Amino acid sequence: MIVLFTDFGLSGPYTGQMKAVLAQEAPGVPVIDLFADAPAFDPQASAYLLAAYSGAFPAGAVFLAVVDPGVGGNRRPLALQVDGSFYVGPDNGLFTLVCRRAASVSARVIDWRPPRLSATFHGRDLFAPVAARLATGRTVDGTTISGESIAKPEWPDDLERVIYIDVYGNAMTGLRTPSAAGAGVWIRAGDALVPYGRTFSDVPPGAPLWYGNANGLVEIAVNGGRADTALGLRIGTPVCLGTVAEAAGRSEPDEPA
Amino acid sequence: MIVLFTDFGLSGPYTGQMKAVLAQEAPGVPVIDLFADAPAFDPQASAYLLAAYSGAFPAGAVFLAVVDPGVGGNRRPLALQVDGSFYVGPDNGLFTLVCRRAASVSARVIDWRPPRLSATFHGRDLFAPVAARLATGRTVDGTTISGESIAKPEWPDDLERVIYIDVYGNAMTGLRTPSAAGAGVWIRAGDALVPYGRTFSDVPPGAPLWYGNANGLVEIAVNGGRADTALGLRIGTPVCLGTVAEAAGRSEPDEPA
Amino acid sequence: MIVLFTDFGLSGPYTGQMKAVLAQEAPGVPVIDLFADAPAFDPQASAYLLAAYSGAFPAGAVFLAVVDPGVGGNRRPLALQVDGSFYVGPDNGLFTLVCRRAASVSARVIDWRPPRLSATFHGRDLFAPVAARLATGRTVDGTTISGESIAKPEWPDDLERVIYIDVYGNAMTGLRTPSAAGAGVWIRAGDALVPYGRTFSDVPPGAPLWYGNANGLVEIAVNGGRADTALGLRIGTPVCLGTVAEAAGRSEPDEPA
Repeated sequence: MIVLFTDFGLSGPYTGQMKAVLAQEAPGVPVIDLFADAPAFDPQASAYLLAAYSGAFPAGAVFLAVVDPGVGGNRRPLALQVDGSFYVGPDNGLFTLVCRRAASVSARVIDWRPPRLSATFHGRDLFAPVAARLATGRTVDGTTISGESIAKPEWPDDLERVIYIDVYGNAMTGLRTPSAAGAGVWIRAGDALVPYGRTFSDVPPGAPLWYGNANGLVEIAVNGGRADTALGLRIGTPVCLGTVAEAAGRSEPDEPA
Repeated sequence: MIVLFTDFGLSGPYTGQMKAVLAQEAPGVPVIDLFADAPAFDPQASAYLLAAYSGAFPAGAVFLAVVDPGVGGNRRPLALQVDGSFYVGPDNGLFTLVCRRAASVSARVIDWRPPRLSATFHGRDLFAPVAARLATGRTVDGTTISGESIAKPEWPDDLERVIYIDVYGNAMTGLRTPSAAGAGVWIRAGDALVPYGRTFSDVPPGAPLWYGNANGLVEIAVNGGRADTALGLRIGTPVCLGTVAEAAGRSEPDEPA
Repeated sequence: MIVLFTDFGLSGPYTGQMKAVLAQEAPGVPVIDLFADAPAFDPQASAYLLAAYSGAFPAGAVFLAVVDPGVGGNRRPLALQVDGSFYVGPDNGLFTLVCRRAASVSARVIDWRPPRLSATFHGRDLFAPVAARLATGRTVDGTTISGESIAKPEWPDDLERVIYIDVYGNAMTGLRTPSAAGAGVWIRAGDALVPYGRTFSDVPPGAPLWYGNANGLVEIAVNGGRADTALGLRIGTPVCLGTVAEAAGRSEPDEPA
């Protein structure tokens, strides 16, 4: 199975051109669109999304992950083996959290080059052919590097920001759901202070809640509405989890506004 | 064949995660995206869309239909056999019109549960595995119920509302095309009174028309333009079909504005 | 391989209904979504896109290309064989540039009709079954015509307009990248005068550039931003390539604003 994680969109030509390469180089291998709208130009937000959403795929899955604003510059192309799965894409931090949370990482810089390499579309010309080769048991020329040399080791374990707005207007954060999630824990997101709920119907229609989403991330929603517009949330909005007082950023407990 | 009818969007993770389940549980079975933008939070509008668009698939098709604002609450999960096709999804009215228009319905509440069931994503965790089992000839634990016990028996046979805006700005309604469709029949949609046409080129560029669409629904368009913005239409806008006087809601015949 | 080039969108029913036909009529043949957001109602802009993006597919590929505002009117349905690939769709200019740039063209008007042909969705009812037949080595009833009789022979070899805005806000033009592309060549696009760069990182963050894109078209972008909003570009915006003076449309060399 090859799993696509990109900011390419599905409607335009980029995903289709990658899939045409995959259909020719790895015929019969299922290709799954996981994200085609990862945060554009934002490898950091994308890195926390990828780490949360790459967990439940079968052994041997190849993640073709391309959020690559530096394409054509000097960032390195990577092929990683991480706990029995493969990851292919640019070395700009996109794989930092996947690697940090793994038991084993084997990292290589891709040395192989296609006969024709465009300046602006390495997803199609370089990364897709490499992913196809790995998915079909072939090898790819590369240079082994240390997992510690992968870009952005300084990024935190959890990111206190909104990292994705979904189709319903729900806001995913870079925070993993804490084991202490429950009624006493609030989240501050931008100017809003939001209580916990297990699911949407735990709050009245139109009211906000946060919950641990189906992939282990703290997520903010409005029952029957859009949290992004109702609460003014967008990718990058700061978030903070804690007691009402902690979430509100005050030293004294207080009621949320 | 498994046919997806959801409000999940294609670009984000939800459809892809469902397809990853299907690829593993029903390998080789074609998966078709019918609607990924069914009206969000709106099982009623979705029910009329589904009934109109599920007719032309091969025998044995499994419709995995999830518009499910009550996920995690107490609505029942259903597996239906309707005139030789299968339908899997929540019991919130989504299947009411499909069943009402069918010759035979066999209905069951799904008792099977997956090892891990998230609170907010039954599409991936419950409905997709059930659809995969049905598509591959396997059985699923369930309790037979009466077709009459399915939710929302009170919904009308046709819905006098806009139920979908397509990519061109055309507005589909919940009305089935009447056999009397023709030059004397008008539609009132919001504040607009719109004449009949067989196809776009029957009216001048920029002019509105209604017609029977390729799936048997009354649809409103503007030749070479967008009916939604030109006429102020959106999902939920009331519509009324009849003579000019009837459509205009007046007792005396009159000219459209 | 069947390659889809349409303005149907992916989320709504149209692409899915076409794929359901293809899955039944050409089972096992890979189907690739190349463009689902070709410029709506605009066969001319679409024609230059299609010509640029249809080059790199395997021999025998069938392009199912439907941008068809005249559906239901009297435009002819075409099946073309062009340099070893097939093209199926309406005769409204969509294939004019593909044919003009080809070494060999064999053109036929499709005479075959399906048992049921809707007035507004020939993509599903007529063109998809024909594409499926061609992709599986079958023949289709048709009448041979001269390649010169295909619509819109008067369209220019390159189109001095923006023809597509991609997911990042980059603006593709109908100009093929000139062999003289380089530092002395500028593009005027609407009110903006934009310098050449090989790739995004050749200009500072937030600055515009034009480059030869990965499919041979002149494209305008902003490093780390959106060219469409930053420069006020949309489909149809006039463009002009040349020296600073030529691009600016002045007879005397001058500095860009």
